[in-house]
Amino acid sequence: MFNIREIAKRAKNVSYGLVDISTEIKNRTLLKAAELIEKKRDVIEAENRKDLVAGEEKGLSKAMLDRLLLNEKRIAGMVQVLKDVASLNDPVGEVIKMWTRPNGLKIGKMRVPLGVVAIIYESRPNVTVEAGSLCIKSSNSVILKGGSEAINSNRVLVNILKEAAESEGFPSDAIQFVDTTDRSAVRELLLLDEYIDVVIPRGGEGLIRFVAENARMPVIKHYKGVCHVFVDEFADLEKAWNICFNAKVQRPGVCNAMETMLVHSKIADAFLPNMIEMFKKVKVELRGCERTISYDPDYIKPATEEDWYAEYLDLILAVRIVDSLDEAIDHINTYGSHHSDSIVTENYTNAMKFLNKVDSAAVYVNASTRFTDGNVFGLGAEMGISTDKVHVRGPMGLEDLTIPKYIIFGNGQIRE
Amino acid sequence: MFNIREIAKRAKNVSYGLVDISTEIKNRTLLKAAELIEKKRDVIEAENRKDLVAGEEKGLSKAMLDRLLLNEKRIAGMVQVLKDVASLNDPVGEVIKMWTRPNGLKIGKMRVPLGVVAIIYESRPNVTVEAGSLCIKSSNSVILKGGSEAINSNRVLVNILKEAAESEGFPSDAIQFVDTTDRSAVRELLLLDEYIDVVIPRGGEGLIRFVAENARMPVIKHYKGVCHVFVDEFADLEKAWNICFNAKVQRPGVCNAMETMLVHSKIADAFLPNMIEMFKKVKVELRGCERTISYDPDYIKPATEEDWYAEYLDLILAVRIVDSLDEAIDHINTYGSHHSDSIVTENYTNAMKFLNKVDSAAVYVNASTRFTDGNVFGLGAEMGISTDKVHVRGPMGLEDLTIPKYIIFGNGQIRE
Repeated sequence: MFNIREIAKRAKNVSYGLVDISTEIKNRTLLKAAELIEKKRDVIEAENRKDLVAGEEKGLSKAMLDRLLLNEKRIAGMVQVLKDVASLNDPVGEVIKMWTRPNGLKIGKMRVPLGVVAIIYESRPNVTVEAGSLCIKSSNSVILKGGSEAINSNRVLVNILKEAAESEGFPSDAIQFVDTTDRSAVRELLLLDEYIDVVIPRGGEGLIRFVAENARMPVIKHYKGVCHVFVDEFADLEKAWNICFNAKVQRPGVCNAMETMLVHSKIADAFLPNMIEMFKKVKVELRGCERTISYDPDYIKPATEEDWYAEYLDLILAVRIVDSLDEAIDHINTYGSHHSDSIVTENYTNAMKFLNKVDSAAVYVNASTRFTDGNVFGLGAEMGISTDKVHVRGPMGLEDLTIPKYIIFGNGQIRE
Repeated sequence: MFNIREIAKRAKNVSYGLVDISTEIKNRTLLKAAELIEKKRDVIEAENRKDLVAGEEKGLSKAMLDRLLLNEKRIAGMVQVLKDVASLNDPVGEVIKMWTRPNGLKIGKMRVPLGVVAIIYESRPNVTVEAGSLCIKSSNSVILKGGSEAINSNRVLVNILKEAAESEGFPSDAIQFVDTTDRSAVRELLLLDEYIDVVIPRGGEGLIRFVAENARMPVIKHYKGVCHVFVDEFADLEKAWNICFNAKVQRPGVCNAMETMLVHSKIADAFLPNMIEMFKKVKVELRGCERTISYDPDYIKPATEEDWYAEYLDLILAVRIVDSLDEAIDHINTYGSHHSDSIVTENYTNAMKFLNKVDSAAVYVNASTRFTDGNVFGLGAEMGISTDKVHVRGPMGLEDLTIPKYIIFGNGQIRE
């Protein structure tokens, strides 16, 4: 029988030694895994096919099956992630500050690994490689719990990471796989705060709430992305049209897509008619406030209170006309999910006020919200995106898998 | 009836505006509170007396009553904390990094307040002022829940903070007091993740476990301090005697006092006899491993497995002889509480290895563990000490009450 306590314990025991593994060994492990993935593409695709066949039999949706698929392009993507992470600076051991106290003690803050990181994720098997590589590079033990529908794909990828580790001298016990589809395993895992330092759930809101309510250890999480673009009265119209269209349409199914568009009443006449036409052409359903509806009463449906909270993940958009920047900021802080929000404006003071007062992980001026992503931000890869307020906000990269500890150099000091 | 949901909601609503309150207003508020505490010393002492009388009637221990007491010195201490925090740099708005992406987006990380911080603490009423002042300075709303035995003392101190806020233009709704001794209030508070961004429990292990198991929001916590000093084979004996004596004896009832002393077998003959005499003189009870006992079989009691895990908070010390640095590090990582641990050595390689491999919030070379404290480290004051692995390890100061958010400056960028 699968013993989750045992694998967590093994991950913890090995974790204390990881801080001593050299950057060179870690990089060689990542590059070896990249090589093995390329070499074993047939095996990976065969295991993935098992999951796809089982998924079809179980009647998974087309979107789910697509997320599950590992084709040539996605396999190449995983190889690239491994190479990218190998090329990033190693954050472990970085001393970010050091000062001397009046008694001569030298006090510093040095980045160290978190310890044991558990990640619980759904469908996309690429996450196995992304999370695994970030944990290897940051000297953390990782416990990977993927979705049951991807178990064969995930297992073969974990085995490749372990093979690479063994070949290059990185302790393979640091990479643990929850090799069971038994749902009670997750519940048990969440109680093991003795061994697991942090858990990161990635998936639907149901999974995340379950983890947040049951975990004894800290959770870094992301409920949903209700992102806004506010078209200020001083917006450049071309930029506004392009940004709003991109934020809604370019990939509507993701967390950093726009779900509500806010428009200043003073620019509505100039901005809205053309914007509505652009959205109509690609069949974006619009749900507006009363004033918005007046711009196209036949096409625009009335928005209800629930629409302001909604994460559609689809070609649907809520639209509201507001009379001030303050009203827009209040709307975003009240109804939003503190993820990514953007203002389109040429006015300096309004831009700075929006940046300051919108309480979100990523706040933009004159750009599409679609950029919120570890890779796009230049972090190399991401463990997930946090809408929490502690430890990390926004994309969680390599540095966020470490935490400074205090190191103190003395020469015999005692406390008076 | 006291409505905790209502005060949490009020704290949240006002929190969004706090980021805009100038450092000047925050500092004036702190200095005004210092002035009011000095002016109202009689009122504070009268309210404190109510708590002391009630505590005596309830049969609180002498130690508890001492912690509850606000005498002239402690009131002066609170005044000093307010002045110290006023003099610290304001962390809000600090941009800690900024870079430009190939598409021209400028991406930065800017410190912003956490939002609403709840602190649940026992007995010492000074915590009210310490936590309140740090939250004011870092533009956080604070919800203060002190122990029921200190409710009159805490109420008068909160009222002073609020009076200072009102007088200087800082929103007084940002300072909320849980003015009830009803225990169900804490349970309800822990479910309000909608309004409260982080909760910090300070007190006994029972309280902290209760909070960790029931809170829906992130918890920053500190279970216990099982701190070690390791006397390496290359220790300077004078330093070792002084440091071990100080770490155990100077104030045994606190979390950064030494609870277990580890001694390298090669230095035991030279080190232990005099050390044992020093401890005997001040009546430190010693519980040793077999080899330790052989140095004074009449005085030293045998240590059990539980002793290695014990936080005595008293003049009791566990002592173990080890045969290597690795054995010492393993002991500390296995039995310790990841709080504060020190090595005494003149050997460079051993010092660096200990610093790297001991997984604790504060790792010392040649100094007493007693220094782990926000004020002593130079942070001005502390909200508490974290033995968690996320957000902050060790003393939690002003900076740790903020978190960087991403700010992104564009000029029309959209995602391809």
